[in-house]
Amino acid sequence: MTNRENNPSGEDALIARYFRPIATDPGAFGLVDDAAVLRAWGDDLVVTTDAIVEGVHFLPGDPPDSIARKALRVNLSDLAAKGATPSGFVLTLALRAADDAWLTPFARGLGEDAAQFGCPLLGGDTVSTPGPLMISITAFGRVPAGKMVHRNGAKPGDRVVVTGTIGDAALGLDILKGGTAEAALAGDATARAMLVDRYRVPQPRNALAKAVREHAQAAMDVSDGLAGDLAKLCAASGVSAAIDAQSVPLSVAAATLLARGIAGIEAIVSSGDDYEILCAISEERFEAFAQEAGTAGVAVTSIGTVIAGRAVPRFLDGKGSEIALPRLSYSHF
Amino acid sequence: MTNRENNPSGEDALIARYFRPIATDPGAFGLVDDAAVLRAWGDDLVVTTDAIVEGVHFLPGDPPDSIARKALRVNLSDLAAKGATPSGFVLTLALRAADDAWLTPFARGLGEDAAQFGCPLLGGDTVSTPGPLMISITAFGRVPAGKMVHRNGAKPGDRVVVTGTIGDAALGLDILKGGTAEAALAGDATARAMLVDRYRVPQPRNALAKAVREHAQAAMDVSDGLAGDLAKLCAASGVSAAIDAQSVPLSVAAATLLARGIAGIEAIVSSGDDYEILCAISEERFEAFAQEAGTAGVAVTSIGTVIAGRAVPRFLDGKGSEIALPRLSYSHF
Repeated sequence: MTNRENNPSGEDALIARYFRPIATDPGAFGLVDDAAVLRAWGDDLVVTTDAIVEGVHFLPGDPPDSIARKALRVNLSDLAAKGATPSGFVLTLALRAADDAWLTPFARGLGEDAAQFGCPLLGGDTVSTPGPLMISITAFGRVPAGKMVHRNGAKPGDRVVVTGTIGDAALGLDILKGGTAEAALAGDATARAMLVDRYRVPQPRNALAKAVREHAQAAMDVSDGLAGDLAKLCAASGVSAAIDAQSVPLSVAAATLLARGIAGIEAIVSSGDDYEILCAISEERFEAFAQEAGTAGVAVTSIGTVIAGRAVPRFLDGKGSEIALPRLSYSHF
Repeated sequence: MTNRENNPSGEDALIARYFRPIATDPGAFGLVDDAAVLRAWGDDLVVTTDAIVEGVHFLPGDPPDSIARKALRVNLSDLAAKGATPSGFVLTLALRAADDAWLTPFARGLGEDAAQFGCPLLGGDTVSTPGPLMISITAFGRVPAGKMVHRNGAKPGDRVVVTGTIGDAALGLDILKGGTAEAALAGDATARAMLVDRYRVPQPRNALAKAVREHAQAAMDVSDGLAGDLAKLCAASGVSAAIDAQSVPLSVAAATLLARGIAGIEAIVSSGDDYEILCAISEERFEAFAQEAGTAGVAVTSIGTVIAGRAVPRFLDGKGSEIALPRLSYSHF
């Protein structure tokens, strides 16, 4: 015992092996300390936290590297929608066991995304759980002082704008669960793979953060469902909105399933996991915003108009009739 | 549908009811936005994250308010040991159901501690889980730029100092599990209650943060066990230590159990959940440190000396013989 060297515990060995190599920021102190340091100076630090739970936000069979990417990207998506530039994150990992075959690809995926999005690992906590895996990330971003984009600035007359395409992730989940979309796309492996990938690995729109910060009146990311998230943005802003459902941007795969009656527009606009940016842009700013989005390589679509009132935003069909939405979004409770 | 008001989802209602009242910092934006803002200016922001899991860090029958307090306090303890002044936290709550009878005392305990320690709620995420409850908190603190206290500054000749008393929490857990301490203290309800309270509601030493920042060469909190955590501090500093086991501060209850042979010193110095501060203080600083600790109302005890070498710190009995420690601390894996 006397001459025994300082041997790391199981947790320390796990951290040293898998996570120290991806903790590249000097403020992380190589993950050998109890805390990290964020230096902020004149900027505001934007803080967001989102957790993903096995069986709720990802499936037990999902590849570990895609689980890691999703855990980080759902937070990066929040930073993008707030107009913030990523500056780092801390990770809480609740595991049933320390399994190399799972942790190796998990840490690789996490490290690759951290590097790609300029959001280094700063620290974390690894705990055992008898239950489902859970990954909780708190991410930090910077904005010039006072410039975080809020939910509450939408004004009547603003355009309602959304990035990317809506509904793909929910269709991907349906495919993974062997639902109707799976059978309908049985002959199209490419479409199936695209939809599954949209569920497993969101594409956060951090390239658009600066344009959102400079042009959006209000913004948030679409995580629980377009209709419900738009209702939240409108409620925070004290406004309503009229949405042209035919303008909601869809992938070819989603549009095909919609045209064939496999997927309803009601489900598409109320299902979770899109991780696109939803924002309100004034008419006079829209052209500049669209131009910057083009430069950033992010598709943006104007889907309707902010209107006065307090009613839940209405989704209108091609004849101007309101589409009844049985639910607005996914809710955990 | 057209005239339906914006109705909050179950999650939003839960947040509005339980957590908005305790989110008192302006940077939290009343928890109606997707992110919070931390303004830092010249200070460094210290970030720490710690999670607690039902069945691992707390018991299913523990009172909800004490679970909340523990979740926050284990993070406050890290901030104190790093010399940082608390400035806020974000909360991830994984629940099986939204149960008012549980959430009401949970939020009350959390809000009271947030107010008591000047550490306001800034935001969070609430998710459903089919598994054990889990509370993950990321907490923020401020230090003057560059002044965070690290693990790696201990030097041979420094005193090894610990706050409060060691081993109470593990004995409290033993009582909750109906172990030998429970029977041994059957006639002493006060002692039993004190030990259980030390397990359920740690006393973070934030009052000592400034003294730690000004005087300690190295510091960390004791969370997994004194022996193991001291080994980590020594490893980070490239030193060893000799500890006089008889100097390790014990409560009367723990000392009684030790004297009666119910609890061994090996278990006392290697069990988790103490949440005291362990630090290395140079001889010339010790008096000033002890004086400031007295003013702050925190007991500090010198338990040994940092020595040169790389060996695991040794715990010595009254005759100077090394006490064999079957394990150094709790490890999750």
